[in-house]
Parts: sequence; structure tokens; C-alpha cells
Amino acid sequence: PKIFMKKVLCICRMSKEIAQDDPRKVIHSLKVGLAISLVSLFYYYQPLYENFGLSAMWAVMTVVVVFEYTVGATLGKGLNRTMATFLAGALGVGAHYLASLSGETGEPILIGFFVFVQAAIASFIRFFPTVKTRYDYGMLIFILTFSLISVSGFRDDEVLKMAHKRLSTIFIGGSACVMISIFVCPVWAGEELHYSIAHKLETLGDFLEAFVGEYFKTSKEEESKDNNKSFLEGYKSILNSKSSEESLANFARWEPGHGKFKFRHPWNQYLKIGTLSRQCAYRMEALKEQLNSDTKVSPEIRCTIQELCSEMSLESSMALKKLGSSMRTMTRTSSIETHIANSKAAVKSLNSLLQSSLWKETDFLSIIPAVTVASLLIDIVDCTQEIADSVH
Amino acid sequence: PKIFMKKVLCICRMSKEIAQDDPRKVIHSLKVGLAISLVSLFYYYQPLYENFGLSAMWAVMTVVVVFEYTVGATLGKGLNRTMATFLAGALGVGAHYLASLSGETGEPILIGFFVFVQAAIASFIRFFPTVKTRYDYGMLIFILTFSLISVSGFRDDEVLKMAHKRLSTIFIGGSACVMISIFVCPVWAGEELHYSIAHKLETLGDFLEAFVGEYFKTSKEEESKDNNKSFLEGYKSILNSKSSEESLANFARWEPGHGKFKFRHPWNQYLKIGTLSRQCAYRMEALKEQLNSDTKVSPEIRCTIQELCSEMSLESSMALKKLGSSMRTMTRTSSIETHIANSKAAVKSLNSLLQSSLWKETDFLSIIPAVTVASLLIDIVDCTQEIADSVH
Repeated sequence: PKIFMKKVLCICRMSKEIAQDDPRKVIHSLKVGLAISLVSLFYYYQPLYENFGLSAMWAVMTVVVVFEYTVGATLGKGLNRTMATFLAGALGVGAHYLASLSGETGEPILIGFFVFVQAAIASFIRFFPTVKTRYDYGMLIFILTFSLISVSGFRDDEVLKMAHKRLSTIFIGGSACVMISIFVCPVWAGEELHYSIAHKLETLGDFLEAFVGEYFKTSKEEESKDNNKSFLEGYKSILNSKSSEESLANFARWEPGHGKFKFRHPWNQYLKIGTLSRQCAYRMEALKEQLNSDTKVSPEIRCTIQELCSEMSLESSMALKKLGSSMRTMTRTSSIETHIANSKAAVKSLNSLLQSSLWKETDFLSIIPAVTVASLLIDIVDCTQEIADSVH
Repeated sequence: PKIFMKKVLCICRMSKEIAQDDPRKVIHSLKVGLAISLVSLFYYYQPLYENFGLSAMWAVMTVVVVFEYTVGATLGKGLNRTMATFLAGALGVGAHYLASLSGETGEPILIGFFVFVQAAIASFIRFFPTVKTRYDYGMLIFILTFSLISVSGFRDDEVLKMAHKRLSTIFIGGSACVMISIFVCPVWAGEELHYSIAHKLETLGDFLEAFVGEYFKTSKEEESKDNNKSFLEGYKSILNSKSSEESLANFARWEPGHGKFKFRHPWNQYLKIGTLSRQCAYRMEALKEQLNSDTKVSPEIRCTIQELCSEMSLESSMALKKLGSSMRTMTRTSSIETHIANSKAAVKSLNSLLQSSLWKETDFLSIIPAVTVASLLIDIVDCTQEIADSVH
């Protein structure tokens, strides 16, 4: 019992964390409950029940299966489900009619053959990459409806009626979902994508700032900067963000215009910025490695490059952060170009500094890490430039 | 019509490519068709039909929804679906009984309340990370069954019978799927994961070999090495492989022992190797950047480091490739340690070479790229060591 209590407490704490972290998740749960209760009314309300009978359960099923966290995902699933049911229903009725022409013995064989062939072909089509990303659920429902209708048609001559009922209840369930997800505290996938990309750019900026602070810190400051650590870890979430970005962009394509976004907003552009910010994050991974490495740069060398490296990364950091916030507000900020120009100027001076002869005297091996850091920072400046280009 | 013909041809070509690329996908499609046709027999075969009636369609539905590409995914979905139906069925019958105690007017209100509360709570639980990875589908089916049973119970007093029928048809459909996916040309998620990780290690090895060839090539060879290009791109698929690896590992946990793998094979170890190989790939991304950069290293410097750099990366490449092939065959190869020791020795000599004075004479700026390459290669050697440690 003690272990049980501990587990319960642990679960409670986790729920609280999730709820505080994103209250929209709680709202989403309530929305699901609301939608299902609403559709259950079909069963309670007498005239409706007489019309649809047992088929009303398709409406409940549709709500449970279609309701997703974002509007785009719900819309996509709802449309897929409705369209696929319609198509497969029509084909299923046709197949049933064809089979019934062939007499008592031929019918089950022919229907079995049809079901086998369409299931095999549709399953194969699901492997097509374009189908997989947008119509996977539709193909599944296609197989389902076709099998159900052509198979149950063998028993029951009311196939048409069944197909019609299934389609209309699914339509009712689907539209209930879509309405609730759009009008009750909507979570737009497009908006999510927009702000997550903006947030990513700001995270990259934070990293650069924290990196400079960490790398060039004097031993005095050693203790005071503990809060920087979290900034130094932030880039890690960006490294593996590709799949979540892609699914958000896919959902966003289903969404109608909302807020600042039009229907055919260039979502692909966001994916491009995402890829560039990942490339930037790869460099930061390498930079981070330099922080932990054993071979320490001698203080005098660090001093020599400190000013220019700091300038480079602080200016890039400013540019990235401003890019992020200008994305948030969807305005252009002219100061971004100035920051980029400044960082490029710093790159140039750093290059000439490296060329100058003052280096020749010191121990070469101890320079290597400094040079690596410098060249990675130069790469990052280039990356920043590219990101800025594609944001506009 | 001409455009239409073109589209059809294009689709045909794509299908052929997919089929040739992985013939198991074709087999999978046929398996789906087979499973659905088998389960449809319930409708044709008279005595079975009389037992189950309309509920037999749940079996068809289960097959369509549960049948997945790998054995692990099918098993996981089937178990989730059966368990969730059982639990939710029991609770739903209980809720229905409780509600019926409260009289004519109280019943619909109470049932509506129950449905709302369980849907909201279950939807919220789906956000828990541990639940999301393994039991997401089960939670969905839980909401579905509970709503269906408690809601339809309001109309029909045969709730228990309905719950029992639903459970047994789902069980039949689910076990048909599992049987077919295990015994007809199975695709094991664990095996897929194993070989994909082995393939990744070999790809990393190929990259290192191709990189050395490309970086130190003389202008004479310029034309002959075009086929290296594909090796140089291979690492890119590793950069974003995290999510697919994780889902394979999740599926693999559901699988019983098969072939060389036991039931509780340490799948997490594979994820660790995957993470390390991604870290290795990040470095390669940075190396690749050096190939394309404008500032070329002067030939004399390249010559100086050529021998040691080549040795470092060729030995690491050999080690990685042998690690991959020893994973494939699940044997230990002692030569791996020799290769790693060789590459470490090369790192040491490179370090002392860099320290030596011969460098001081040349232009410093032109050394930077060479130094960057060298230090990245050193990082990769360390990575290789770590991978080798965790493979065993």
C-alpha cells in the first residue's frame, strides 16, 4: 500500500506538471469530453435515434477517432474519413451489384476476390511517400468501408441504405469534431509551427550568448553563471526536431486561414528555416564539445581572440533573437541587417588577425582549439545570414 | 488524356521502384488482403454468422486497423486493443448498472456525466510521455468502448451480451492478424532495428573512407571518383533518424523472442548506439562543410598532414565497418580493437607533428582549414571508441 500511495502521488505530480506546462492540454481533454457527450445525444433524443438506429454509434466512433490536438490534424482526419467513406461506399455498392449478377455460387467467391484485391492494392498505395504523409488515414478507412459494405452486403440487401447511414453519421460526427476544435479554444498547427520556429531562432541566439559568457569567463566568475547552463543545453531539442516540424507543417496545410495566416501560407518556407536552424545547431554541438575538451587554450591566446569572437557571436546572437521576435510579431526589423553586417565585419578582422605574425611565437598545439572555435563561429555567422535571407 | 496517361505511367514507375526497393512491402500488402479475406469468412460461414451476427464486422474492423508492417507494431496494437476493450467493457457495464439504479430521469444525466468524465481523463492521460509511446492506441480504444457500451446500454438491456460479443470478435480479429504477421513472412521490428544500426555504422565508415579520398585527391584523379559522391551523402540519413529508431525500439519491445534475439533483448542499447552514431554524423556534417569551403589548404600543408589524417580516418573507417559487420553476424571481431588502437596512435603522432616547428614558416590563414579537419577527425576517433565500447 505504501508503494501504491507513492505511485499515486507521483502520477498526481506528473499531471500537475503537464497541466501547468501547457494548460491547453487540459482544455483539449475537456473538449473531447464535450464532443463525445454532444454526439451521445443522438442516442438519447428519440426522433434522431429512430432515424439512425444502431448506426448512430458510427458518430460516436468518428468523434473518438478523429478528434486530435490541433485543428489541422482534426480537419485532415475528418476530411480523409468522410471522403474515403464516400468513395469506398460507392465502390463497395458497385462491387456488391456486380457480384450479385453472377448467381448464388459465384457471389461469395467474387466478393472475396474483390476484397482481397482492393485490400492488397490499397495497402500497397499506403507505402507511397506522398500518400503516407497526407492520406494514410483515408486509405485505411477506404479498406475498412469497402470490406464492411461489400461483405455485409452478402447478408443484407439493404446495402445502399447502410452505406448512406454510415456516410451521414460519419459526416455528423466529423463535423461536430471540426466545429468544436475550431470554435472552442482552437489550437492551430500553423500557429504552433510559426511560434516553435521563432522560439528555435531565439534559442540559438541564447546559446551563442551563453557560449561566449562561458568560454571567455575568468575564473572569478566561475560560480555566478550557473543559470547559463540551461541556455547551453537548449540547442539539443533542435537537433531532432525534424519529424515534429514536418507533421505540424502537414497539419497546417489542412487549415483554413486564421489570424495572421492565410490559407496557402508558405509552410514549406518554415521547413527550410527549420533545416537551416538544425545545421546551425550541429555547429553548436561541435562548439559545445570544445567547452568540455581537455586541451585548454592558454589565457593569452584566448585574450587575443576574445574581443572579435565575442563580437561575432554576440552580433549573430542579436540577429537571431531579433529574427525570432520579428517572426513573432510578423514585422520587419531593419536592425537585423546591421547586426549581420557587424558580425561579418568581425569575421574579416578575425581573419586578418589570425594572419598576422603575432601568432608565430606561441605553442601551436594550444592554438588549435581556439582556431576550431573561431572557424565554427564563422560557420555560424554564415548560417545566420542564410536564415535571415529565408525568413523574409 | 495525354496528361492523364503521363500520370498513370509515373505512378506505375513509382510502384515498381517501391516494389524493387523492398519486396517485403508487396508481401505485406498481400498479407493484409489475406487476413481480411479470412476474417470475412465469418460472414459467409452460416453457423458462425448465427453466433455473432452483425458483431462479426468488429472482426473485419480489427484486422484493418491492427495489421501493421512489423510484427511488433501489430502485436502492440492487438494487445492494446484487446486489453482496452476488456477493461472499458467491464467499466462500461458497471457504469451502466450504476446509472440504471438512479431511475428514469437520472439515468441519461448520470451516463452523460460518466462519459464526459472518462473521456476527459483518458484524453489527458494520453499526454503522459510513457503512455504516449506505448499505450496511446489502447487509451483511444478505451474511450471508444466505454462510450459505446455505456451509451448504447441506455437503449438496450443486452449490454453484457454486447460487451461480450465485441470482446470476442475483436479477440478473433486480433489473433488472426498476429498469427498471419508472425507466421507468413514476418517482418520483425527488432531485426529491422538491429540491421539498420549495423548499416548506419557501415555508412559512417564509408563516409570516412570516401572523405579521405576526396579531400586528399590530386587534380588528376578529379574525374575518376564520381561514385564516391553517394558515400559522401550517406551520413545525411543518419542525422534525422532518431524518431524512426525510437518507434522501432518501441515495437521491438512487444515482440517475443525470434531468431538471434531473446524476448528482453537490450533494445535501449541500440538507441544509445544510435545517439552516438548521430553525434558522429554531426561531426561529418562539419567535415563535409570543409570540402565545400572556398579557402583551400595549400598543397604542401595538405601533404604534411595527409599521411596521418588518412591513417586516422581509414583506421576508424575500418573499425566502424567491422563493428557493423560484427553486429550483423553477432560475433566479436578482435581486429576492431587493433584498428582503434592504430587510429589513436595516429592521433598522437598528428598532435606532435602539429606541435613541431615546421609549421611556423607558412601562412597561418591557410592552415586553419587543415587544423579544423584534423581536430574534427580526432573527435570522430573518440566517437568511434565510444561506439565500440557500447556495441559490446
